[in-house]
Amino acid sequence: MRMVDLIEKKRDGGELLTEEINYIIQGYTRGEIPDYQVSALAMAIFFQDMNERERADLTMAMVHSGDVIDLSAIEGVKVDKHSTGGVGDTTTLVLAPLVAALDIPVAKMSGRGLGHTGGTIDKLESIPGFHTEITTDEFADLVNRFKIAVVGQTGNLTPADKKLYALRDVTATVNSIPLIASSIMSKKIAAGSDAIVLDVKTGSGAFMKTAEDAAELAQAMVRIGNNVGRKTMAVISDMSQPLGRAIGNALEVQEAIDALKGQGPEDLEELCLALGRQMVYLAGKAASLEEAEEKLREAIRSGAALEKFKQFIANQGGDPSVVDDPEKLPKAAYKIEVPAQEDGVVAEIIADGIGTAAMWLGAGRATKESEIDLAVGLMLNKKIGDAVKAGESLVTIHANTEDVEAVKAKIYECIRVADHAEAPVLVHGIVTE
Amino acid sequence: MRMVDLIEKKRDGGELLTEEINYIIQGYTRGEIPDYQVSALAMAIFFQDMNERERADLTMAMVHSGDVIDLSAIEGVKVDKHSTGGVGDTTTLVLAPLVAALDIPVAKMSGRGLGHTGGTIDKLESIPGFHTEITTDEFADLVNRFKIAVVGQTGNLTPADKKLYALRDVTATVNSIPLIASSIMSKKIAAGSDAIVLDVKTGSGAFMKTAEDAAELAQAMVRIGNNVGRKTMAVISDMSQPLGRAIGNALEVQEAIDALKGQGPEDLEELCLALGRQMVYLAGKAASLEEAEEKLREAIRSGAALEKFKQFIANQGGDPSVVDDPEKLPKAAYKIEVPAQEDGVVAEIIADGIGTAAMWLGAGRATKESEIDLAVGLMLNKKIGDAVKAGESLVTIHANTEDVEAVKAKIYECIRVADHAEAPVLVHGIVTE
Repeated sequence: MRMVDLIEKKRDGGELLTEEINYIIQGYTRGEIPDYQVSALAMAIFFQDMNERERADLTMAMVHSGDVIDLSAIEGVKVDKHSTGGVGDTTTLVLAPLVAALDIPVAKMSGRGLGHTGGTIDKLESIPGFHTEITTDEFADLVNRFKIAVVGQTGNLTPADKKLYALRDVTATVNSIPLIASSIMSKKIAAGSDAIVLDVKTGSGAFMKTAEDAAELAQAMVRIGNNVGRKTMAVISDMSQPLGRAIGNALEVQEAIDALKGQGPEDLEELCLALGRQMVYLAGKAASLEEAEEKLREAIRSGAALEKFKQFIANQGGDPSVVDDPEKLPKAAYKIEVPAQEDGVVAEIIADGIGTAAMWLGAGRATKESEIDLAVGLMLNKKIGDAVKAGESLVTIHANTEDVEAVKAKIYECIRVADHAEAPVLVHGIVTE
Repeated sequence: MRMVDLIEKKRDGGELLTEEINYIIQGYTRGEIPDYQVSALAMAIFFQDMNERERADLTMAMVHSGDVIDLSAIEGVKVDKHSTGGVGDTTTLVLAPLVAALDIPVAKMSGRGLGHTGGTIDKLESIPGFHTEITTDEFADLVNRFKIAVVGQTGNLTPADKKLYALRDVTATVNSIPLIASSIMSKKIAAGSDAIVLDVKTGSGAFMKTAEDAAELAQAMVRIGNNVGRKTMAVISDMSQPLGRAIGNALEVQEAIDALKGQGPEDLEELCLALGRQMVYLAGKAASLEEAEEKLREAIRSGAALEKFKQFIANQGGDPSVVDDPEKLPKAAYKIEVPAQEDGVVAEIIADGIGTAAMWLGAGRATKESEIDLAVGLMLNKKIGDAVKAGESLVTIHANTEDVEAVKAKIYECIRVADHAEAPVLVHGIVTE
């Protein structure tokens, strides 16, 4: 088999066989196939696409390029949730205890990573004492007993995907549905869950700018999952503005607590229910999505979800009293309001830019070496469609410095007030097969 | 400027600006832009093409990546001829003295290279004493005095093209009209001629399998040439079977001598006139292609072309008496006939395979290190459309070994005899603008 022939085959619209895809991914992982051939192939795939079988094969070839997490010591159907990424996305913090409260095992491996705010582990570390330094055995034991635990990711997962993604990033081949879908799915499958619920974001703050593109990606991922034996569903959700109101680590923990009490922002709650009902259904705990949603609402109403969160915090060394006493979370030294400059209706909140402003405050990492400030961030006091009067606060900046002029300017740049505007639809669609 | 943005621009069908193309080629030549970005760009160009301006800019960027030959010491309009490559192509050996006989300067820089037979210099070295070790000054002086000289190529011409071609060869991006056309034209332009005549081959033995593809390539090259100020024309010629009858170094010299006497194979003579008349016209030595052709025919009839060949040989140390006494050319030890196995008409002579058989005999180099045997080769006794009787010789093998079973088998594999067949059209078209 020669790589150049496989590039030519794909270039001319041919279908790569299973063994050909394995040859490419194994050879690339081992360094036997050079970057310059793989980038040419990626560009050929950009133009010629891959069919469902090729996408599934590519995904599994990347899964087998490295370690695969074995969650077999954990009882029950393990359901993972993945978001394609947005700003102020607090859903994981809400969903983990909410779903666990329904006896569904939440065995969460999470990372820190780069971005507007920290990763799930960073956020949870806002809670005094909380830590994720537990062994694999302790992790499995906690999930078996309490249905919930979070641990840092270990092992060398999908090295082929890491290498391929880095290459695509510098060769203008990121934006290809089969390559995006197989990249995401390979990571989720290597992480060992039995079923996967995907939150595919769309809008100015998301990678997929249009709902059509997001739907195509969602369907591609759902089909890969189902074709390789992992039950998979997806929600296509709006990211034309940040989700919820909090953007920042401790701020998002507080927002999650509010949501678990049934007092969170409406859009956050709606999305958590949309994702959560798929998780409950796939875990086999409800016969229909409607029944699943009812169970989730009941877990909030009854306080079971909030109790589960407290138990989870205590299990991993944290102080569960933060749930009732938010003053125990890290607080920024300064709260600075950003007042509206005119009367009107909020018409636009550019999610990307708002996330960048939060990162400037120190809420997220610009590089791997950056230190995160867990206390800082932004609270949106108005969202798209909300009426506002001149002088009324649009955003509250939580900062550990008074020098926030650049952040303020960035916020003004990102929020547009107009005569009329309506709140965007939050859930654009669901994909179940 | 970032390379990844330029790849994306081309990927999305955009037009690369002059300065962007210069940035890419300069950066690649210097090793500042890596192979993996250039291969992705080449694949994007494969799918999105380049317009006429981009093609001209790419050509000139490659020309300026290295040395450019200065032929200004040579008087008159220097016209170069280039063939896209075929089997048994003896046109250069015929055209050089033929055109020089009409007072047109033929300042030929040639190479050795790989292939079914040697390069022009290898072929000429069949003539006892002939050599190309002359200085640049001697070269210019010979051309000024006698209108003809051949020298080995010197200088670092189009390093960007060499690097890009090697990359395209292993990334399935060879077969792209803008990339092929700019590659060929950059080399011809760097070689310093004022005008260029192209022989674009088509058919099973050529890179361009169909006449339509060949016409597209020819037009692309003619437009590049004219757009960058080099008068350029092209002939689209048949390579569904080898040209002429001889495939081998000394055998082709003999065939060229025959052609200069007006006794060469009909197809070789026809193609030499088709190419030659464009050369004469572009050199300004005739007001029309018809007049140019008449002058060429007269140079053959009068013996002027043959005299020019003798003079050329003598000027470069060779023995001009080979022209009248072909026994002085290297002779193979064995002449072995390949008889037809049935009565019929020759319907197919697969040019590639016949060329490979000649290479097996030692007529060409498989690798840079291979030694060429100037005496060996093949003579086609029948061409497509010729009637043949069982036992009559199809091909004469000129070998320095009696062990030619593999070569014979290959020849039988390549020649098909059928009930009916007609000689193919030789000149499929001419492209003048």
